[in-house]
Amino acid sequence: MKISTFNLIISLLLVAGFAQSQPPRGPWVISPEVYADKSVTFRYLAPEAQVVKLSGQFLKAPSPMTKDAQGIWSVTVGPIAPDIYPYNFQVDGISVMDPANVAFFPNERFKASLVDIPGDTPLVHALKDVPHGTVSYEYYPSVSGTTGSLVVYTPPGYDKNPTKKYPVFYLISGTTDTEETFFKVGKVNFILDNLIAENKAKPMIIVMPYGNVAARVAEQRGAAKPADPTSRDGDDAVSRARAFENDLISQVIPYVDKNYRTEATRDSRAIGGFSRGGGQTLRAAFGNMDKFAWVCSYSSYLSPAEMDKSFGQIGSQPDQTNKQLKLLWVSVGKDDFLYNGTTEFMEYLKAKKVDFKPYISEGGHTWMNVKDYVAKSAPILFR
Amino acid sequence: MKISTFNLIISLLLVAGFAQSQPPRGPWVISPEVYADKSVTFRYLAPEAQVVKLSGQFLKAPSPMTKDAQGIWSVTVGPIAPDIYPYNFQVDGISVMDPANVAFFPNERFKASLVDIPGDTPLVHALKDVPHGTVSYEYYPSVSGTTGSLVVYTPPGYDKNPTKKYPVFYLISGTTDTEETFFKVGKVNFILDNLIAENKAKPMIIVMPYGNVAARVAEQRGAAKPADPTSRDGDDAVSRARAFENDLISQVIPYVDKNYRTEATRDSRAIGGFSRGGGQTLRAAFGNMDKFAWVCSYSSYLSPAEMDKSFGQIGSQPDQTNKQLKLLWVSVGKDDFLYNGTTEFMEYLKAKKVDFKPYISEGGHTWMNVKDYVAKSAPILFR
Repeated sequence: MKISTFNLIISLLLVAGFAQSQPPRGPWVISPEVYADKSVTFRYLAPEAQVVKLSGQFLKAPSPMTKDAQGIWSVTVGPIAPDIYPYNFQVDGISVMDPANVAFFPNERFKASLVDIPGDTPLVHALKDVPHGTVSYEYYPSVSGTTGSLVVYTPPGYDKNPTKKYPVFYLISGTTDTEETFFKVGKVNFILDNLIAENKAKPMIIVMPYGNVAARVAEQRGAAKPADPTSRDGDDAVSRARAFENDLISQVIPYVDKNYRTEATRDSRAIGGFSRGGGQTLRAAFGNMDKFAWVCSYSSYLSPAEMDKSFGQIGSQPDQTNKQLKLLWVSVGKDDFLYNGTTEFMEYLKAKKVDFKPYISEGGHTWMNVKDYVAKSAPILFR
Repeated sequence: MKISTFNLIISLLLVAGFAQSQPPRGPWVISPEVYADKSVTFRYLAPEAQVVKLSGQFLKAPSPMTKDAQGIWSVTVGPIAPDIYPYNFQVDGISVMDPANVAFFPNERFKASLVDIPGDTPLVHALKDVPHGTVSYEYYPSVSGTTGSLVVYTPPGYDKNPTKKYPVFYLISGTTDTEETFFKVGKVNFILDNLIAENKAKPMIIVMPYGNVAARVAEQRGAAKPADPTSRDGDDAVSRARAFENDLISQVIPYVDKNYRTEATRDSRAIGGFSRGGGQTLRAAFGNMDKFAWVCSYSSYLSPAEMDKSFGQIGSQPDQTNKQLKLLWVSVGKDDFLYNGTTEFMEYLKAKKVDFKPYISEGGHTWMNVKDYVAKSAPILFR
């Protein structure tokens, strides 16, 4: 017998985390299990559930799962095209993260897990044996006396070159995403590590702020939680966009320029964003042409009416715009529900003779596309 | 009408993140809502569910919730004693995180959300207006050619004092916790920020490694996912403990000493851990007395039999042990299921005349207690 007292203690420590009031844990579940042929088995323990389905961005429709004698539901799907996909389980009609998987999608409204299908050659976001940058969580003095948080990528070697200064890319995620989403789902740190290792992108700092500043301010000041940030209420939506821009310009950029070794000029400052973050990007860039020379709009746009109303000088003085903006990147997927709006924005820019770099991809309004857009646009920055 | 095209676009961007195959989102849900009197309303949208209960470490038993006309289940509980608590919803018998709450408990086996009830005077982990340190995610060369990840706290001013060196506290979380748990649930960054601001703790670096190295190695090398890490299988449990210790000593500490400005001596190196991490702490410390002078075991222990078998010199040569260890902290809660084992460990140390600092608290095997233990032991370190 090799089962020592120590080992018995180890076994006792299994209930480390959570409440005594939880349902019994039951058997150990492995999920997801990714096979060499890129098929994947998903498993979920729910002995009492009636109907369990797998929902994921690699599926056209939820896939029914079947229950074994232990109460573990499972389904094997694929092969799946290599990428990182959000998924969850639909358990008797409710959406549930995969309890056996720590990879998750930070979001204020839904919970999803992530499955990573590796490519035969490593994908652009793969964890490779190259020098790695660091991702840091920073707390900064934000507007109205509140404390904000930033996620900041510094490139490999940042700490080893104590005099070198770097350009900065501000990167803003979508509605109900958080400041963690570009890190945890977008994998911008690994994308940049890989691009830099191959000399395809300039070493840069990437700053990921939180998009819904108005909500954080309200919460920290003890005010009632703000209304639905996805609502179409006009004044409220504009005031939220302004709160973000004001915080970015007056607090975030000065904090970053003070606390990181930045090239603190417009020519060394880029801004990009996805979805709502793309709208915030265009507003912040067009409204502060002294601050940003490089602009990336991923799956987002401003309407011609809004351009004429709020940023008329962009189109009315194209020579000046083209001189000031070293890059205006606009990308969207063919299946994106914002495809029409984005191509209309492209047509507007073309008619006004504003230079921009269009990229129409396959796929929809997804983080698979966001990774692709970052990987294709970051190499252009600061050149 | 102030609803401009831009605002309509904002509203369209609401579906930013996830699959078309998700159930309809339904009404906006605010949860949890913490009131000034420390009562809290929890809400969960599930029109088709039959029975929904709230489960949380502030409750003795799950609390039934009631459904409104929109299908939102809710319950108001409290007042609740100020602290951070894990909770989730039990929806027709399954455990579900709160979709409306981004604060979550990183764990490999269960999913829980976190609710933070502020104190009338700020608790030790509160986000206060003091200088803040930085929490960084690092990728390091681990054993067997794999890449490991670390979460690293650097104290306020670390980047401003380019010649100052700091002591290091290695901090290991429990079974099925991850390297993020001491950050996201334990709030060690805010605890240290606050202690340092009040001159109650020495500025230090805190390194939080991942405890289940064997599983990560297997996964990265494409091997089958390892067996249940909570199993009591003897050889497997010991081999897992050794894999962690080997990685810590041969890879993690050299990486940290190379990449951070550390005082790289045993007198300036502490190790602590919770639950399984406490067992790993005691083994790593007693097995490597040249590496650590400060040792903190939170809600954990080694049995007298295991002490005699594997670490006999600790008790047989107490004068040497007491000279080498500047602190041996052992704490446990009165309701902890490891209370008897931990007090037996204390009795063993006492009988052997090994100096240690005991602390018996109220409560059980919880992260509320872990925060308390960190807050009370960190001030003693490196003095």
